[in-house]
Amino acid sequence: MSSKRLKSLQLALAKQRLDALLIRTFEGDNQNVLYLSGFSGTTAVLVVTRKKAFIVTDARYFLRAGKEAPDFQLVKVQRGKKVSDHVNEALAMAKLTKSAKVGFEAAHIPVAVAKVWSKEIKAKLTASLNVVEQFRQYKDAGEIKLLREACRITCRVYDEVVPLVKAGVTENEIAFEIDMRLRKHGAVGNSFPSIVASGPNSAMPHHATGDRKLKAGEPVIMDFGGIFRGGYCSDITRTVFVPGKEPHPRMKEIYKIVLDANKAARKALKPGVTWRQFDKVARDYIGERGYAEYFTHGLGHSLGLVAHDPYDYEHCPFDVGTVVTDEPGIYIDGFGGVRIEDDLVVTTNGAERLTTAPYLKF
Amino acid sequence: MSSKRLKSLQLALAKQRLDALLIRTFEGDNQNVLYLSGFSGTTAVLVVTRKKAFIVTDARYFLRAGKEAPDFQLVKVQRGKKVSDHVNEALAMAKLTKSAKVGFEAAHIPVAVAKVWSKEIKAKLTASLNVVEQFRQYKDAGEIKLLREACRITCRVYDEVVPLVKAGVTENEIAFEIDMRLRKHGAVGNSFPSIVASGPNSAMPHHATGDRKLKAGEPVIMDFGGIFRGGYCSDITRTVFVPGKEPHPRMKEIYKIVLDANKAARKALKPGVTWRQFDKVARDYIGERGYAEYFTHGLGHSLGLVAHDPYDYEHCPFDVGTVVTDEPGIYIDGFGGVRIEDDLVVTTNGAERLTTAPYLKF
Repeated sequence: MSSKRLKSLQLALAKQRLDALLIRTFEGDNQNVLYLSGFSGTTAVLVVTRKKAFIVTDARYFLRAGKEAPDFQLVKVQRGKKVSDHVNEALAMAKLTKSAKVGFEAAHIPVAVAKVWSKEIKAKLTASLNVVEQFRQYKDAGEIKLLREACRITCRVYDEVVPLVKAGVTENEIAFEIDMRLRKHGAVGNSFPSIVASGPNSAMPHHATGDRKLKAGEPVIMDFGGIFRGGYCSDITRTVFVPGKEPHPRMKEIYKIVLDANKAARKALKPGVTWRQFDKVARDYIGERGYAEYFTHGLGHSLGLVAHDPYDYEHCPFDVGTVVTDEPGIYIDGFGGVRIEDDLVVTTNGAERLTTAPYLKF
Repeated sequence: MSSKRLKSLQLALAKQRLDALLIRTFEGDNQNVLYLSGFSGTTAVLVVTRKKAFIVTDARYFLRAGKEAPDFQLVKVQRGKKVSDHVNEALAMAKLTKSAKVGFEAAHIPVAVAKVWSKEIKAKLTASLNVVEQFRQYKDAGEIKLLREACRITCRVYDEVVPLVKAGVTENEIAFEIDMRLRKHGAVGNSFPSIVASGPNSAMPHHATGDRKLKAGEPVIMDFGGIFRGGYCSDITRTVFVPGKEPHPRMKEIYKIVLDANKAARKALKPGVTWRQFDKVARDYIGERGYAEYFTHGLGHSLGLVAHDPYDYEHCPFDVGTVVTDEPGIYIDGFGGVRIEDDLVVTTNGAERLTTAPYLKF
């Protein structure tokens, strides 16, 4: 898989008139490295030239990089030497000279690092944008398979957790049950900290889950996802009502509006549709029912190796392989809120829902 | 707490001849924002002037930012407007004009963002380094209390997990038990993906935990930590041997060398000692016993709001409040390895061990 991606990148280098591209991890920001090489550690620089590919990493990762990134030649960082020395070593092995045009990822390299690199790296450094991301924004069959499986497991976790939503249980306890089950069924971690927002807290789209106890009849927004095999993420939101008391009639009304907005947006989704149009379908639906001001965030985002996967939202309409969240919400301060989120993959003539967990029926 | 930090920063601005500093989150890189403001969400820009402080965030976080960051005036991002428009709004409220010198964090702001900001923000933008980090590298009493508690819970998890290390259990199963218990006892997440490296895998300092089954007599390196209250991280490593068979005599020898190197370094630690000297104590100890080439990484790192907390290692010796990991290791490819890691806080005349989990005795 990664060798095919590597070849696509090498072809793109020629188009962009680059002799090489440097791709660097920074703490959790390691997805471009993972995507291209298969290396899943936290410290590496890839040096990709039009013909060759190197992975520069330190002794903690020598054996692992060899196993995970077989298409990349390992360049071992020696203690006391700089990473840039080894980048130069790789460039020299690829027979690139000082006049070579070497790109770095402007969206990922901090200003301070670029400054050091421009002094130390023996090449003409140039800021590049979206060289790897242009590939990541359309998922191939293998990636969709992994995302489908991630969503399947995530929906199973949802099914297991719904019966645990009871009056007296805390938000944190529910989040714990979600997180344990994600891990138990195969996630290596959470794609973001799970949100469990109950009662008035449900009016905060990104509430910090806390020790509040659930009360009968009130809404509970559960927004969570896992990082699964290959690094692929799921992201689902469901809103439920705590059993023991009938939900407020207006809450039921809001629930129906949000669900129908979610469905309307999904139905409108197909290749060629823009993100703005997709957002507008749900926003208009909610607006026509008088709740425009309470839908305070965007309708969705690209999903992949991170929960908010890179995508050129302005310039790239949906196409086959776009994976997008569809998550309208209505939030009323002091009253509560509802959000319903699905992960969708764009197909040749529409969109398929990957998160098949059930909705509520009134 | 955060209001004291904010004041220290505002004094530092005057010293650095800055009229303001912009501090921005980027995905998981939100610790400077958290440290200064208390806001724990993933999307915000702080605009700190010598007299005022603003938090720019979007509707997902309006209510939460108000609660978590009471010392900061909330500037609401409006849909369709740019974050930089709102940064300008904050600068205008602070009566700063185009000629104001406004710093941005060069270690955290990607080149692409700096480029956009330099066009859109109405001020003289200037790259700054370590303005917030200079404070973060020495922990105050409140932070040490949180770190002590984080380490106490982490050691409890270790105690609970040791009896589960048995032949036939997989690395992933052990990691699952660790992670569940961290969460159960109060962690909001892992400070990094838990490492469980068994048998030959223990020769990889940063092994990717997998489905390998443990075998009697072989070493198991467990390296893990949680993110606890206030965002503070623990980080511990212990090496144990799978019961049912006596460990290889050379493994026992290696264990003793690594443990004594760990202790020697701890005893040498006090204010004024440099990181290089600290590292040398353990490295010399291991080197004198013939294992120099097998201790392939640095001795330790600063610990705090992230597992690898920022620290100016070259220029700032240890001082009261430095929190550091002490983690020598010996790794022999094809045979196995041992690492023993403690978290230490530097005191007026020495260092205190925060991770009091027991070592093995032979």
